[in-house]
Amino acid sequence: MKKVAIFTSGGDAPGMNACIRAVVRGGIYHGLDMYGIVRGYSGMISGDIKKMDSRSVSNIVQRGGTILKSARSMEFMTPEGRKKAYDTLMSHGIDGLIAIGGNGTFTGAEVFFNEYQIPTVGCPGTIDNDLYGTDYTIGFDTAVNTSLEAIDKIRDTADSHDRVFFIEVMGRDSGYIAIQSGIGGGAEIVMVPETHTPLKKVITTLKDGWKRSKSSSIVVVAEGDEEGHAPEIAEKIKKQVGDKLDIRVTTLGHIQRGGGPTAYDRILASRLGLGAIEGLINGEKNVMAGIVNNNLVFTPFIDTIQKPKPIHEDLLRMVHILSI
Amino acid sequence: MKKVAIFTSGGDAPGMNACIRAVVRGGIYHGLDMYGIVRGYSGMISGDIKKMDSRSVSNIVQRGGTILKSARSMEFMTPEGRKKAYDTLMSHGIDGLIAIGGNGTFTGAEVFFNEYQIPTVGCPGTIDNDLYGTDYTIGFDTAVNTSLEAIDKIRDTADSHDRVFFIEVMGRDSGYIAIQSGIGGGAEIVMVPETHTPLKKVITTLKDGWKRSKSSSIVVVAEGDEEGHAPEIAEKIKKQVGDKLDIRVTTLGHIQRGGGPTAYDRILASRLGLGAIEGLINGEKNVMAGIVNNNLVFTPFIDTIQKPKPIHEDLLRMVHILSI
Amino acid sequence: MKKVAIFTSGGDAPGMNACIRAVVRGGIYHGLDMYGIVRGYSGMISGDIKKMDSRSVSNIVQRGGTILKSARSMEFMTPEGRKKAYDTLMSHGIDGLIAIGGNGTFTGAEVFFNEYQIPTVGCPGTIDNDLYGTDYTIGFDTAVNTSLEAIDKIRDTADSHDRVFFIEVMGRDSGYIAIQSGIGGGAEIVMVPETHTPLKKVITTLKDGWKRSKSSSIVVVAEGDEEGHAPEIAEKIKKQVGDKLDIRVTTLGHIQRGGGPTAYDRILASRLGLGAIEGLINGEKNVMAGIVNNNLVFTPFIDTIQKPKPIHEDLLRMVHILSI
Amino acid sequence: MKKVAIFTSGGDAPGMNACIRAVVRGGIYHGLDMYGIVRGYSGMISGDIKKMDSRSVSNIVQRGGTILKSARSMEFMTPEGRKKAYDTLMSHGIDGLIAIGGNGTFTGAEVFFNEYQIPTVGCPGTIDNDLYGTDYTIGFDTAVNTSLEAIDKIRDTADSHDRVFFIEVMGRDSGYIAIQSGIGGGAEIVMVPETHTPLKKVITTLKDGWKRSKSSSIVVVAEGDEEGHAPEIAEKIKKQVGDKLDIRVTTLGHIQRGGGPTAYDRILASRLGLGAIEGLINGEKNVMAGIVNNNLVFTPFIDTIQKPKPIHEDLLRMVHILSI
Repeated sequence: MKKVAIFTSGGDAPGMNACIRAVVRGGIYHGLDMYGIVRGYSGMISGDIKKMDSRSVSNIVQRGGTILKSARSMEFMTPEGRKKAYDTLMSHGIDGLIAIGGNGTFTGAEVFFNEYQIPTVGCPGTIDNDLYGTDYTIGFDTAVNTSLEAIDKIRDTADSHDRVFFIEVMGRDSGYIAIQSGIGGGAEIVMVPETHTPLKKVITTLKDGWKRSKSSSIVVVAEGDEEGHAPEIAEKIKKQVGDKLDIRVTTLGHIQRGGGPTAYDRILASRLGLGAIEGLINGEKNVMAGIVNNNLVFTPFIDTIQKPKPIHEDLLRMVHILSI
Repeated sequence: MKKVAIFTSGGDAPGMNACIRAVVRGGIYHGLDMYGIVRGYSGMISGDIKKMDSRSVSNIVQRGGTILKSARSMEFMTPEGRKKAYDTLMSHGIDGLIAIGGNGTFTGAEVFFNEYQIPTVGCPGTIDNDLYGTDYTIGFDTAVNTSLEAIDKIRDTADSHDRVFFIEVMGRDSGYIAIQSGIGGGAEIVMVPETHTPLKKVITTLKDGWKRSKSSSIVVVAEGDEEGHAPEIAEKIKKQVGDKLDIRVTTLGHIQRGGGPTAYDRILASRLGLGAIEGLINGEKNVMAGIVNNNLVFTPFIDTIQKPKPIHEDLLRMVHILSI
Repeated sequence: MKKVAIFTSGGDAPGMNACIRAVVRGGIYHGLDMYGIVRGYSGMISGDIKKMDSRSVSNIVQRGGTILKSARSMEFMTPEGRKKAYDTLMSHGIDGLIAIGGNGTFTGAEVFFNEYQIPTVGCPGTIDNDLYGTDYTIGFDTAVNTSLEAIDKIRDTADSHDRVFFIEVMGRDSGYIAIQSGIGGGAEIVMVPETHTPLKKVITTLKDGWKRSKSSSIVVVAEGDEEGHAPEIAEKIKKQVGDKLDIRVTTLGHIQRGGGPTAYDRILASRLGLGAIEGLINGEKNVMAGIVNNNLVFTPFIDTIQKPKPIHEDLLRMVHILSI
Repeated sequence: MKKVAIFTSGGDAPGMNACIRAVVRGGIYHGLDMYGIVRGYSGMISGDIKKMDSRSVSNIVQRGGTILKSARSMEFMTPEGRKKAYDTLMSHGIDGLIAIGGNGTFTGAEVFFNEYQIPTVGCPGTIDNDLYGTDYTIGFDTAVNTSLEAIDKIRDTADSHDRVFFIEVMGRDSGYIAIQSGIGGGAEIVMVPETHTPLKKVITTLKDGWKRSKSSSIVVVAEGDEEGHAPEIAEKIKKQVGDKLDIRVTTLGHIQRGGGPTAYDRILASRLGLGAIEGLINGEKNVMAGIVNNNLVFTPFIDTIQKPKPIHEDLLRMVHILSI
């Protein structure tokens, strides 16, 4: 292996830059020529590829977003698009790939590898922490802390006005952000896609709190909860409890994706980036690098996409006990 | 004057606690007995009043929200309600009041003073900075910094994906938060209630940026803009520009109200609190304390409510020049 | 078991309050009467003990420091002192203890348990992460993030002035904070007590960076490094390299202990607090609760104190590779 | 005027980049060719000068430090050095200069202007706020907030352990940072170079607090206080009070210079940058742009350097009243 290219794809996540830095410097350290592909699969097709040296990744470990940019590519979903991508890579002499991203990224990588066999190792970069094969994904810890800061701020208002706040956080299929920011923020209730929390139970809990003279309550809702989005849920509950509770809603939205990465994400991203490039050098292919129980492991792309990642049931139980 | 009571009313704002601390300690320093009324006018009616000493306000200068809580009181809008409030105050021997809040708070205070003549001095506590009689209100600087942090985070994603973001910030009648966070965040466009920004102009600016190879753009929208809320504006623009621009929307919402106050707000709150209590001792009444050109001034409640507070036109001009 | 008392001891650490909250609410949830001992062993002797209910621990999950305060107690090191402590506990009917703290705390708990057999479970609360029996201690993640924020700020100046900065972080016997904040902050060199980094090597690395046109460099030094404190090390190096490098030093100091806890520390503290009280109920005694590989484990106090906690050698290797 | 060059000099300050952006875009907006000089007077001599366009200053409004770097130049203090600088500027056709910096920067600019008459306008960029001719300097608000965050963290520990903390902040000749962060942080005492606070008084205040059952105290010391540096002062006081008070010291150091600028500093920097370039175009020369009472004013360099900037005596009085 001589020339390896790296790209980011899918939604950006804090720590992607720290990961890029680790891959590039790790590759150079081991004697490889390193290249960056701009805008993921789209740049792979259009040939937006540039040589990277140690200085190209200076002073980025602390930055949010991705210096290699990210974009969707419909064209890469077609055999013709992938053929173009392959031709471009060949014209640059690329003989190895590092892909940073999530589900969609690895689905593409899996298909591409099966067709053209360019050795590829992935790094899990997504705030949702919904990938099998790693305890945590790059960006998750930062997203949780960002959500938590927002919850801390909202609690000031909730307490000052004796209000109930429904706060929606990211997580279409996964309640990880909701649970962790809920526990961290001292939420009374956390609603996640993985388990069903009936509205009746939410109402009972809120009313009970009221009786125990709780002056305010926080309900954290993952965007993918089966009872609907936070505004919808709040509306339903308002209808049932009337004026007794002063209910407000806020949706955190895009702020959860950005920001400089936390220490945890910088270190995780560095370990995974270095692990991925060294894995690639040592013959790993068609796999994602992950950290499980503090060890570096490689999991086939197909498993990272298809296998379910169970939620921590004991954390949900904890929400209940700690909010009494 | 012997016994002075303090209360907070209206939406909570960061720095209210620093202001309470300055009022209480300033009063005690000058030999007064100090009382806190819980939940504003509502607590004034129900008699939720407590003695405060120096220790009651320890370790709160850095906290968001208000330890005296805030609430709406319909009853205080009626003569009967105000009579009850007056009776309660008399029964506690209160002969002076400090009111921290915004428009609604001072409207109530004005009416109450005209009826019962209890000397009252106000402190401007609202994130909107929409009160005549002070350059800045308590909470404004913190709200701007909170919005700015959010914009900084969103810019990471905007840059990574070459997107246009419409970000809605607070300000029903006032564009102060929008303008300051827009300039601070390097926004391409700022839309405020005070001046009309036609959608045509917004589109032209965004397209021009595109031609000059700006990879992403930020538009900050005050919630009270005459073109509508951010999601609405974004929808209209999407219809006109089609797929050329990848447009996203986010509404910052309640996070802007909370959080520990900035240095600026803590100092402003401390100066206004101390100024208000010393003003009250010196015979000021029915006025709001403010800082204009770095000097303490007192403005009749009626003027703070009715007189318009002009926006900085030169700051809007600056947005335009600095986004080229 | 009916009455359990909790106390914090040793240096304060962010997350101690979240842990107190989890212990108290967990105990109440399981039907126990919960008590708080103020100022650790010192309050145990003087009888500064108070009943705690659910509301006593409201709104503290996000606060730094410890609401139960901490203090050194020389008296507890004597048999007479411990006798007094025992008598006080008996007079309150306390039949179980939860101790939050570090090395010194558990040494005291071990001795006390051997003498009086009151079942005691510990929670690891120290920013240094130097306790065997848990992957991470409460407060460590926050301390690393605080150090990292400081390093990020100093790098601005280092880059602007092409300087070399020596930054001293906490860690008398342990390089954990230094290594993690060094990797996260993109440091060129990390010096820790566990391994010896000769000054010659430091100089070579700095000079090499200079040749590769690195405009600035960061060296993170743990306070317990065998080459001395950061100012000392910097002085020695200045003598050898002369004016070629513009060297500055900063010691982060006490800011590393304080601040609201990160999400990670709040969740860790909550898990350990709940785990400790449930462990105590289930018969655990004379042990510390810890999380190893994401599982709750109990380790005898004697092991937590005496067994060495190895540093991550692979992280040190990473510093070297990533700084090229 | 056709070609204007901008440079930063002296210690870096947060907001310098926002100022560079405003100068460059303002100049381009008004039809000028804009140039950046790297490393201040040193780069002016060596000819490290580059053309700047709108994109050169993209995405820097939020960054600490200075992208144009800063350095000391002994050579510029000599007539020969300044001759070289002049020749370099002439060879690039530069006919106007914008200098961002503090005292030393403007002293150099004053001498240079008197010798060679290249129209020069300055922008006050220094965290110390020690320049006459502007209410606040670029970087001051950020430095105060950074100090305040540190004080907030240290208070957690001070409270948890009932300690007295002496915290040294920057300010060799000026107590501005000390006073504002002291008030904001709820300090019991603030010691500044402008007024003398006898140690006897410090001791009395600390002891009084103790009697009023204050559990902890914060003393903020400006580095230029006439009683010495914080460690020295603490040592003297320890000798006099003995073990009664548990006294600790921390010196904030270089973290105060760095970090992304606050909203206030970004807006101030933008206003001053645009004001400076438009002033230069309109014929201003040998002056510094400042904001006094919210208006843009120009003050001769010689006055900004020589005239004293008085401290807010009323703020010092406030520290005393608010710490009771």
